[in-house]
Amino acid sequence: MNDTFLKACRGEQVDYTPVWMMRQAGRYLPDYQRVRGTVTFLELCKNPELAAEVTLQPVDIIGVDAAILFSDILIPMEAMGSPLEFQANHGPVFPQPVRSQADVDRLIVPDPEETMGFVLETIRILRRELEHKVPLIGFSGAPFTLATYLIEGGSSKFFLETKRMMFAAPALYTSLLDKITACTSSYLQAQAKAGAQALQIFDSWAGVLAPGDYERYALPYVQRIISDLRKTTDVPIIYFANNGATLLELARTSGADVLGLDWRIDIANAVKQVDGAVSLQGNMDPCALFLPHDEIEKRVTRILAGARNARGHIFNLGHGILPPTPPENAKFFVQAVQRLSRK
Amino acid sequence: MNDTFLKACRGEQVDYTPVWMMRQAGRYLPDYQRVRGTVTFLELCKNPELAAEVTLQPVDIIGVDAAILFSDILIPMEAMGSPLEFQANHGPVFPQPVRSQADVDRLIVPDPEETMGFVLETIRILRRELEHKVPLIGFSGAPFTLATYLIEGGSSKFFLETKRMMFAAPALYTSLLDKITACTSSYLQAQAKAGAQALQIFDSWAGVLAPGDYERYALPYVQRIISDLRKTTDVPIIYFANNGATLLELARTSGADVLGLDWRIDIANAVKQVDGAVSLQGNMDPCALFLPHDEIEKRVTRILAGARNARGHIFNLGHGILPPTPPENAKFFVQAVQRLSRK
Repeated sequence: MNDTFLKACRGEQVDYTPVWMMRQAGRYLPDYQRVRGTVTFLELCKNPELAAEVTLQPVDIIGVDAAILFSDILIPMEAMGSPLEFQANHGPVFPQPVRSQADVDRLIVPDPEETMGFVLETIRILRRELEHKVPLIGFSGAPFTLATYLIEGGSSKFFLETKRMMFAAPALYTSLLDKITACTSSYLQAQAKAGAQALQIFDSWAGVLAPGDYERYALPYVQRIISDLRKTTDVPIIYFANNGATLLELARTSGADVLGLDWRIDIANAVKQVDGAVSLQGNMDPCALFLPHDEIEKRVTRILAGARNARGHIFNLGHGILPPTPPENAKFFVQAVQRLSRK
Repeated sequence: MNDTFLKACRGEQVDYTPVWMMRQAGRYLPDYQRVRGTVTFLELCKNPELAAEVTLQPVDIIGVDAAILFSDILIPMEAMGSPLEFQANHGPVFPQPVRSQADVDRLIVPDPEETMGFVLETIRILRRELEHKVPLIGFSGAPFTLATYLIEGGSSKFFLETKRMMFAAPALYTSLLDKITACTSSYLQAQAKAGAQALQIFDSWAGVLAPGDYERYALPYVQRIISDLRKTTDVPIIYFANNGATLLELARTSGADVLGLDWRIDIANAVKQVDGAVSLQGNMDPCALFLPHDEIEKRVTRILAGARNARGHIFNLGHGILPPTPPENAKFFVQAVQRLSRK
């Protein structure tokens, strides 16, 4: 198996910089569109054969160095008892937002095998399929990010309801976050047990918090999950606090092996800030995949140079690949990273 | 006149930290809602008596240390010849996006007196009304931010069309930005001539650019505007690159007297980065205005302490005040800044 990705996570010597792309199993691929055309998004997440099929596509078509489980960060929130809908052009919706203690009390901490067996089954299929190929990454959302969806009832612009609860009803907020953390913790442990060889925690909305609020209301729950995981598994853990340039020094204390970076920060600056404590993952602007090939190469070269002194570097985009991206450009990008980084 | 704000912009000694709020003339005020109920948003922008009336409201009701002209950053884009609509719940829309050289060539560089006389008339009314009160801030959008609206045809999530033009058709992008810069430059000069006592340049979307792209595709146009302004006026200039924590060291070279900060950065960190070169404006999370009063005071105290070693500090929110904010909390916040900062 190509274990370059796992080695870079651990800061071990590698022959070239491994690369994968967030949302690499996604709408930019005609093969994905074909599968997705036959089922709803949630049906695709819950069908292990189809979820495994789309997970494998970028490994075969694009040539990435890691596969990431096809699923959605909100699956465990539905398993906690909050009905979830995906509306076309509106993203995820929780029709019953969590706003009171009674709402929190109604949520359960689910058993992952019982309620999310389809995810674990997808992982088991994938490990068989990927045996001689690349490692499989499992994932979850981070508790703060998951809480925003439950509290707001979906996506948000200003996260006012979340911050209102956080700031003005901290006991209620804490009780909700404790429950989400317990769920996420056992969910990630179950993924590792089913065969995930690395785990990424997505804190997609961490960047809407001031550093002091992040330190108090978001980071401790991530630390708890990672410290729980360390008791049962030694798979590498990647923590991605999106739009988190000002949170990096705090995120360094999360316990993760790797910190993900969005494209807003110069990776050389991030290398300095984490000072060899962790590996880094990122961070090309996904819009750069629309550039001519020689310009893509220039940007790859610049990021490789910036990450030269990192403990380890996994190349990635700074955000999910955009649906209109030409697949041939994604493939060119991945090959450029592998070629230009070879010693 | 209370000139505390102007002194802080210039880094001069002040008796207390001056404070105003972005979008302080806005929907959180019932008095604003009353005026706005009688006209459309664009009609309000274009009616000097009404625009002046809502500009004055927060001075009288909330007690801020500066007034900011009520207008919209897209007014000069309409004056350049791009029809502008405001659709309820959809924000601004340019039904004819600028995507080709022919589209750019059709845009004009308007004479501000001829095409935006209503803004200059609003400023003249306000200077009379504010004579013994507080200074008046004029403003514009920054060229990159204005360009995103023209290119995308309105607001955007990923700014793909803008970056596509920037990255893949740099000559076209440059020709558009040159024209917007010329328009913005003469517009701000006209505002200063009409009586604006300070000018703020809003780069609301700067934060979607990686530092290297910001340096190449956004910052030079801001530098050009400021250097043009310096030839004709000595009013203080504030530059606000929203979500720009990683751009701060570059923004320092904009030529502005003051840099605005959103709430994502610890202001003490920003003070270190700008190292006495400029004053700072910001940066409380607008959601903190929903906190109990004693918690608002704690946050004000923390930011005042963080800004202690700044060359000058103008207190503000890190983003516009949110429409559901209780006006009494806004007033409490403003008074808390003025009281807690008094030497």
